[in-house]
Amino acid sequence: MTVWSIDARSGERRRGFPTTGAEEVELACRRADALLPRLEEAGPQGRAALLEAMADALDHRVDALVAAADAETALGVGRLTGEVARTSGQLRLFAEVLREGAFLDVRLDAADSVRPDLRRMNIPVGVVGVFSASNFPFAFSVGGGDTASALAAGCPVIVKAHSLHPETSELTLAALREGARTAGLPAEVVQLVHGREAGTALVTHPLVRAVGFTGSIPAGRLLYDLAKSRPEPIPFYGELGSLNPLIVTPGAAARRTEEIAAGLVASVTLGAGQFCVKPGLVLAPRGDALVEAMARHFAELGPQVLLGDGIRESFEAGAGEREALPGLRVAASGRTGGDREVTARLLTGHVSALAASELLLEECFGPMTVVLAYDDEEELLHALAATPGNLTATLHSEPEEEKLAARLMAVMRARAGRLVFDAYPTGVAVGWAQQHGGPYPATTEPSTTSVGTAAIFRFLRPVVYQNCPTHLLPEALRDDNPWRLPRRVNGELTLP
Amino acid sequence: MTVWSIDARSGERRRGFPTTGAEEVELACRRADALLPRLEEAGPQGRAALLEAMADALDHRVDALVAAADAETALGVGRLTGEVARTSGQLRLFAEVLREGAFLDVRLDAADSVRPDLRRMNIPVGVVGVFSASNFPFAFSVGGGDTASALAAGCPVIVKAHSLHPETSELTLAALREGARTAGLPAEVVQLVHGREAGTALVTHPLVRAVGFTGSIPAGRLLYDLAKSRPEPIPFYGELGSLNPLIVTPGAAARRTEEIAAGLVASVTLGAGQFCVKPGLVLAPRGDALVEAMARHFAELGPQVLLGDGIRESFEAGAGEREALPGLRVAASGRTGGDREVTARLLTGHVSALAASELLLEECFGPMTVVLAYDDEEELLHALAATPGNLTATLHSEPEEEKLAARLMAVMRARAGRLVFDAYPTGVAVGWAQQHGGPYPATTEPSTTSVGTAAIFRFLRPVVYQNCPTHLLPEALRDDNPWRLPRRVNGELTLP
Repeated sequence: MTVWSIDARSGERRRGFPTTGAEEVELACRRADALLPRLEEAGPQGRAALLEAMADALDHRVDALVAAADAETALGVGRLTGEVARTSGQLRLFAEVLREGAFLDVRLDAADSVRPDLRRMNIPVGVVGVFSASNFPFAFSVGGGDTASALAAGCPVIVKAHSLHPETSELTLAALREGARTAGLPAEVVQLVHGREAGTALVTHPLVRAVGFTGSIPAGRLLYDLAKSRPEPIPFYGELGSLNPLIVTPGAAARRTEEIAAGLVASVTLGAGQFCVKPGLVLAPRGDALVEAMARHFAELGPQVLLGDGIRESFEAGAGEREALPGLRVAASGRTGGDREVTARLLTGHVSALAASELLLEECFGPMTVVLAYDDEEELLHALAATPGNLTATLHSEPEEEKLAARLMAVMRARAGRLVFDAYPTGVAVGWAQQHGGPYPATTEPSTTSVGTAAIFRFLRPVVYQNCPTHLLPEALRDDNPWRLPRRVNGELTLP
Repeated sequence: MTVWSIDARSGERRRGFPTTGAEEVELACRRADALLPRLEEAGPQGRAALLEAMADALDHRVDALVAAADAETALGVGRLTGEVARTSGQLRLFAEVLREGAFLDVRLDAADSVRPDLRRMNIPVGVVGVFSASNFPFAFSVGGGDTASALAAGCPVIVKAHSLHPETSELTLAALREGARTAGLPAEVVQLVHGREAGTALVTHPLVRAVGFTGSIPAGRLLYDLAKSRPEPIPFYGELGSLNPLIVTPGAAARRTEEIAAGLVASVTLGAGQFCVKPGLVLAPRGDALVEAMARHFAELGPQVLLGDGIRESFEAGAGEREALPGLRVAASGRTGGDREVTARLLTGHVSALAASELLLEECFGPMTVVLAYDDEEELLHALAATPGNLTATLHSEPEEEKLAARLMAVMRARAGRLVFDAYPTGVAVGWAQQHGGPYPATTEPSTTSVGTAAIFRFLRPVVYQNCPTHLLPEALRDDNPWRLPRRVNGELTLP
């Protein structure tokens, strides 16, 4: 079997890659498991050097990487060049996390007359399987956040390449492996498999101890169910789908009509609307001004090439189904293009349409959003409460609307992991405070994040040493703190 | 339907409690969900006062609580009195956690030319369902660790009472509710349901956002599967079963024969062998001395009353099946008692018996352990590696065996969450550094703990506020740090 690299703009086959057979997956898992001690021996310092060497190798190869990704995804050279920088920056950030050491969460409780000596730290969970995302060929793919945080934790990684960018995946793999060699570690700390069956085999393999996934609800839930029905279930960190409601209060709609219209349309159509944090549902007060302003921006949009045929077909079907719903109308369309291009669309209606169809509460990937009008606060709160779990919820309000804002924030917080104020949800900064995850189906494990430094905790588990003789203690747990770690000593947080 | 409080020693019915119907469970879930804002408004200080008032109420009622629990479980007044103290101490420890504030994991990233202002903190997940354990009527039941950590997190709790101690459960509930009223909070922050169907209804109710469970593998896996197959799956923090292997090296067996024999038998038979951390498999060098010393201690043991009829029948069946395995023999038995009592048993054989039957790798609840002899290091390592996930793994070794110890520790760490040295696994100290959890089936989520202060993280999830106007910011995230929290500011950990 062959996975074909397809030119997203022309639909032509560029190059084939053989799918990975069951025996090869088996071999990859054993090889990865055997490398677990190597990553651990490298220690936080050695793994920091590994991540930095990988980042350098990606940056050195940026032109070839971007060229392949642009052909395979049509996301454009500018955006993709930025994404490579974001990806290498992410690897370097996890190097900082390793050097700082709080990720080990060292806790020491001294013995007393009744208690034993207890020394606790985090250890890697084992081999990690990573599923690449279609829409981020770098930042959420072979060398992306899941891989960076798993390697940082000390876990060898096996990536399932996304079928829409197999060549980009192979080129990224080569860069990561060059980095590993530079750092004096085996190239196989990251491995790559192609094909759906190889992906399934990864999730069910006894040596795979955790999975990171970014993709659609149907594919994600299928793999989630596999992970949870194993004889020994494993954590499945899946980012599945998000509607990302954006609320415009009466005050904001009146005072910032044009500004919000322009910002919102830019956010909805960024990357041809193929962002997991695209605002797919806008709740705005009844009145024509905001929709009319948005419509003017939509009318100026050119036709857009999506990531692949399947995604284009899903968008056309999804947009069509929504347009046909009673009470909904197309307020504006972008310019129409060729067979392989889609037309951006703005749909409007009243919040009462939410009661008529579940469809409006589902994500529709692509350059489209739905603006629903509310008549009063209760309708607004009711509509917001009806949304499923989200990665983000956004509020545009004015200072004098504090009481309404507080009511809305309580619901937003219950429904999302990131609350955005007077801005737009697209653009997820990679940093120490970021949270990318929210109630299901946004993510399958809402208490974790897939972006930002806290992502490392997904691939660690704690172990405590009770009365361990000094000569057998891991360095990180020694009294003299040779690694200069932040630690909790007898309950008190201490800095080195 | 009625759940009967049974006298464990006589088998007589003491008192009946009606099972909770589906409508009552529905009502309990709605009531609990409605109390979420109340627990949040109380803040960490208010919830600390709540937990302390609950602890005081338990301590004041200790005599009545212990009398009921002793009748229902036969665990004895001394042990049960200690368990009440452990339980109230645990509630007070979580009050300390709340006052210290690190559980909020506040992270602030300031805005710069390209990044927004991000402020992240933990919030409660929502209503928590707790399943009581048979073997800890206080510490892992109505007012136990799951309830304490969930309330600390700000989550209202609904407890499924264990059918072996319904009266103890009701008395504990009354104490907790008295505490809630003293603290000025609604009594219904903890609710209680009886009956298996009510338990199932809890796990599948949309308003229940996480479950804590301590019990058997079959019951736990059934509920785990329910939690994971919901339309919106939820975390299921289950402690299911653990073999707790204990290794005696040749050096330790030679030098500390009598000491280890005495300690091990005491650990195996503590609480009539009904501890989740009972050492159920001992790996010892070939030779008769250790087994003979253990046999002398076993022969002195009196007959034992187990927690209930079902547990006694399971023990008799499980011990019988193991005795009948080829290559295994009964090295010693305790004294025999009446129909309602069981006889403690010591089984021995060679590690090769592990290859013949999976049964020796499964937990057998009750006063019994299996000592398997190994001939060399490789046999020992191979046998240890064959064990499933465990809560604990214990090593008795001598200083000159450092190399062997290091090899064993690597396998122990991969198989368990707590590594015990030259001591015994029973007795789980409640503190800041404790870890009670390990690879499946020991626990369903090995990266979490059900004992110790880190248990609170099971019932929290992070939310980040992006560009939030100052007047809308939660107090915990304000620049001036009014709650004096430890925080990570622009990547740097800072103490108040």
